[in-house]
Amino acid sequence: MARKIGVILSGCGYLDGAEIQESVVTLLAIDRAGAEAICMAPNVDQMHVIDHRTGKEMPEKRNVLVESARIARGDIQDVKGVDPDELDALILPGGYGAAKNLCNFAVKGENCEVEPDVGKLVRSLVDARKPIGVICIAPALMAKVAQEKGERVKLTIGCDGETVATLKKLGIEHVDTKVEDIVVDETHRIVSTPAYMLGQRVSEVSEGIEKLVKAVMDMI
Amino acid sequence: MARKIGVILSGCGYLDGAEIQESVVTLLAIDRAGAEAICMAPNVDQMHVIDHRTGKEMPEKRNVLVESARIARGDIQDVKGVDPDELDALILPGGYGAAKNLCNFAVKGENCEVEPDVGKLVRSLVDARKPIGVICIAPALMAKVAQEKGERVKLTIGCDGETVATLKKLGIEHVDTKVEDIVVDETHRIVSTPAYMLGQRVSEVSEGIEKLVKAVMDMI
Repeated sequence: MARKIGVILSGCGYLDGAEIQESVVTLLAIDRAGAEAICMAPNVDQMHVIDHRTGKEMPEKRNVLVESARIARGDIQDVKGVDPDELDALILPGGYGAAKNLCNFAVKGENCEVEPDVGKLVRSLVDARKPIGVICIAPALMAKVAQEKGERVKLTIGCDGETVATLKKLGIEHVDTKVEDIVVDETHRIVSTPAYMLGQRVSEVSEGIEKLVKAVMDMI
Repeated sequence: MARKIGVILSGCGYLDGAEIQESVVTLLAIDRAGAEAICMAPNVDQMHVIDHRTGKEMPEKRNVLVESARIARGDIQDVKGVDPDELDALILPGGYGAAKNLCNFAVKGENCEVEPDVGKLVRSLVDARKPIGVICIAPALMAKVAQEKGERVKLTIGCDGETVATLKKLGIEHVDTKVEDIVVDETHRIVSTPAYMLGQRVSEVSEGIEKLVKAVMDMI
């Protein structure tokens, strides 16, 4: 039986949803590892819709699950209906969606709230000691989930001073890292990589994500 | 100087735009080859908007260039403004967008029209004997551009009987191919691979696209 790796998407496009390149590279690495990606997203509206050419907000509403389905080619589930017992591990790609739709770290910083269904699933995996991979800004969500139980997790989002400072208020141990590297918290079984928090090229982002997927698979 | 490879996107999502996984894998292969991807799309409305969870049409309008910018992380140009002399090669990922927004093959078959700016750019590259890579259903557009000048090009879209039959009406020589393989037309300098016309897994689609990018680069 192939290992089942849950992948939580947060929309489709890095300014208001999941970072598309990080998401696809994650799916590719999972497939190449002989595992099965189980794509999922919360069935909620996006915080907003951004024109990715101009960076400006558009007067539209889009649903996180519906837009995430574009990346997953329609093969996607509502996070609410996912049984954590069915998963061997969980990976969260980045993009602002992880900090706007899966939690609201982008606007509330260390006082953010995690989307309830997403928070519940991540907590279930942590409690079951199943490995979790967090990419780009997704470590912010992981930090919040850990803080709620007073767990001091070790993470990286690269070396962005201001974001690192905010994350430290959530009680994390931050490790400065290069884009192609990962940080492994063996105690809490969490792997992180900076991806486009630091990266300029898809090849270097992919290198870090490939290492993350391998490290997650090795911990199953 | 890094080689410049134009990549024509057709939206963001395989049912109404560019196939996201094919597009990202193409960008990754170009970057890994040490070349620079120049992303572009026509500044036109999508034929329609499809909910990728249900397959049903949504009552919305979206712009091909604006949605394509999601895949390209904002770094994208209007096809109309692209100088063909600046490009060393051109690659068109698939997805229904290539047959709905870049041309209307999906509804008009062999009687389709190619979006004028896209058609002009592709024709410029052919006439300059610069290599072109066409992925998934994008060979249909290539076939139409070739037919307009009576060129009999050799292509593959895998082995989909009905689509192959329609393409043959455009005067192409079709070669049945597996998902991880490519067909090279040395005379017209065109490389094609079936990708998700045949593929079930992103890893096998990626294998074909990596070969396509390498073959295109080798012909520059």
